[in-house]
Amino acid sequence: MRTAILTVGTEILFGQIVNTNAAFLSQELNNLGFDVMYHYSVGDNPERLEELIHLAFRDCDMIITTGGLGPTQDDLTKEVITKAMGDELVVNEEALRALKDRYEKVNRPMTENNLKQANLPSSAEILPNDQGTAPGFWLEKNGKIIVSLPGPPREMTNMFNKQVRPRLKRLQDSVIYYRILRSFGLGESKMETVLLPLIDGQTDPTIATYAKEGECSLRIASKRATSDEAEAAVDRMTKEVLDIIGDYVYSLDNEELIDVVGKLLKDKNISVSCAESCTGGLFAGALTGIDGISQVFERGIVTYSNRAKMEELGVSASTLEQFGAVSRETATEMAEGLRAKTGSDLCISVTGIAGPGGGSEEKPVGLVFIGICYEGKTDVIKTQMRNVNRNWNRNYAVLNMLHEIYKRIK
Amino acid sequence: MRTAILTVGTEILFGQIVNTNAAFLSQELNNLGFDVMYHYSVGDNPERLEELIHLAFRDCDMIITTGGLGPTQDDLTKEVITKAMGDELVVNEEALRALKDRYEKVNRPMTENNLKQANLPSSAEILPNDQGTAPGFWLEKNGKIIVSLPGPPREMTNMFNKQVRPRLKRLQDSVIYYRILRSFGLGESKMETVLLPLIDGQTDPTIATYAKEGECSLRIASKRATSDEAEAAVDRMTKEVLDIIGDYVYSLDNEELIDVVGKLLKDKNISVSCAESCTGGLFAGALTGIDGISQVFERGIVTYSNRAKMEELGVSASTLEQFGAVSRETATEMAEGLRAKTGSDLCISVTGIAGPGGGSEEKPVGLVFIGICYEGKTDVIKTQMRNVNRNWNRNYAVLNMLHEIYKRIK
Repeated sequence: MRTAILTVGTEILFGQIVNTNAAFLSQELNNLGFDVMYHYSVGDNPERLEELIHLAFRDCDMIITTGGLGPTQDDLTKEVITKAMGDELVVNEEALRALKDRYEKVNRPMTENNLKQANLPSSAEILPNDQGTAPGFWLEKNGKIIVSLPGPPREMTNMFNKQVRPRLKRLQDSVIYYRILRSFGLGESKMETVLLPLIDGQTDPTIATYAKEGECSLRIASKRATSDEAEAAVDRMTKEVLDIIGDYVYSLDNEELIDVVGKLLKDKNISVSCAESCTGGLFAGALTGIDGISQVFERGIVTYSNRAKMEELGVSASTLEQFGAVSRETATEMAEGLRAKTGSDLCISVTGIAGPGGGSEEKPVGLVFIGICYEGKTDVIKTQMRNVNRNWNRNYAVLNMLHEIYKRIK
Repeated sequence: MRTAILTVGTEILFGQIVNTNAAFLSQELNNLGFDVMYHYSVGDNPERLEELIHLAFRDCDMIITTGGLGPTQDDLTKEVITKAMGDELVVNEEALRALKDRYEKVNRPMTENNLKQANLPSSAEILPNDQGTAPGFWLEKNGKIIVSLPGPPREMTNMFNKQVRPRLKRLQDSVIYYRILRSFGLGESKMETVLLPLIDGQTDPTIATYAKEGECSLRIASKRATSDEAEAAVDRMTKEVLDIIGDYVYSLDNEELIDVVGKLLKDKNISVSCAESCTGGLFAGALTGIDGISQVFERGIVTYSNRAKMEELGVSASTLEQFGAVSRETATEMAEGLRAKTGSDLCISVTGIAGPGGGSEEKPVGLVFIGICYEGKTDVIKTQMRNVNRNWNRNYAVLNMLHEIYKRIK
């Protein structure tokens, strides 16, 4: 089905936000076998928005819009779609109830302009919003479909995942089955090279690679008459892929590394503590994002200063002086000091140079030492990451820590 | 001048890349006083691309394209623009020379398909590319302007900065000046309500509000004949806005709260340590994202378990038993224990219920206590956040912590 994505909001045309909504929707629609023909972005202007809707429907059967559903004066998407589709706006009782509930729950008065969020086109199905106040809607009329979603990415993706994807699946004309593998430690072009014999001349299943912040995903997709056939074809190809790059793959189901590691720690009931220097709390912050992790996560220490490394973890002054804070020896003493203090099954430390300053010829920005005490021994892993920027370097160090844990507990 | 941005490339419609080019160009054009009316994205398809060019010129005087200028078969932008503008493609001698030079310099043979990069529309001015092989061009014909830039962001931004911005400046008919204010603690619709007297009936300066993850931004913009007039108009309106919501505004220059707080801590040389429970390291992780923060950040303790709260911070067992880990009393003892341990000028603690589990009628998900030891006294702030989800609740708790610090040290 030919689809257009129409993102609404002056902030897009001002360049104040980068249009991640269009990218997310494109990925999801392509995965489901829909053809995305156009992205359009327009400001909060009713005439231009209406013209784009008519234009998109000349060439497409479906439009997905984001933005302009909120309570403020310049939120006009719903009004314009209603007019363009020859419908009328009516109070939707379900939307009104949800809105009132929401305001009651947070104990805030509902202002008059909030009420307009309960209006929907009369032929529309409501798409409830459990992350915000503005509901979305699904409108089919005269053989065309328009799906209207809120602009804030968190609300939009949540509504898409819960409400839109299941409806789109019912519209598929052939069955696409796909699986997304996640890997760590192998670059995209290296991966493409080693998989070339499988990728080349392959029409179904197709294999596509995507690089993403130090990780690489692999999408294996098959389009067949039945879902059983498609799934079997994907299974066969997955096996061939794993024969080649199995060592790098940590998920067959498009999971984040943090989720895979968090689940393993909980399932195997491995208690864990961490001592961080260059990542400054990001590792603990990522791990504690996992619901229920308090079952195994004991504590984290962010020893940013040398004094903190000595006082909290018993790193010796002579080690810091002789080898420096960023060294194999300091990483070892941090992990072992943490282990002595907490007794956690797995104690992990990290020290490195996040940049932009602080690097030297001998110890360049991106140098990281990770210490792990686990099952009676201490390993130290030295990694020289390529230096992208402080933010990337810190996040990539966290991914390295997670991957080192993964390799040991999988 | 009314402008459309047209980004070309199948990878955009597949969602493989996020369209940062459109955001960059939008910001730059708006800053120069050009009105960006539309973003269009289309794949490497000549018919649809040509149709969009005609469509954009119905409403706009200028189109800026990115992408599709390279040597491969699916790079068609130049060919399509030439046809749409009624021009013809000719070998551009300057482009040919630059191309040959480039290949000689990197000592690589130039293949036949690379030659096509030297073809340009006969009426076009070449825009040299010193970051890659494909030149861009500037084409004026029949009162319309089309500017064609390469797709790779580094090449595109470099060409824009060196070649396009100076040409655009010559075309300016008015000047836009704008300022973005950032606020915390006031919702978007509440802000609109209190600012309604200023927003209503206001044509210049314009005021627009944007909600963003618990914060709210306010853009005040003026379009005048000279930049001095525009700036003065924005200054006057800023003053009126601050008279109403000044207590909530933490930046007049579109800075993040974390950057404002980090800068204040560094400038005033206030040493800081933190003790986190529900945020699990996110506060320390955010603060240590600031380059140079090691000058003032001493340490962070993530006391996730009760045992850690007692051992690391000296929280008493009886406090934990009588009042619970999420309580005013525990937040106080955490902050004071941290202060006793580190001696940092500012010690901040946080304990709360991040959810989704762990809430009760008495202590619902979203309840957070923040303790601050600063200048000889300890404050505890109780906040009941609306419960969005674990991730949001944790990040919003961090924003609350930053804002409490901001209020005390600004």
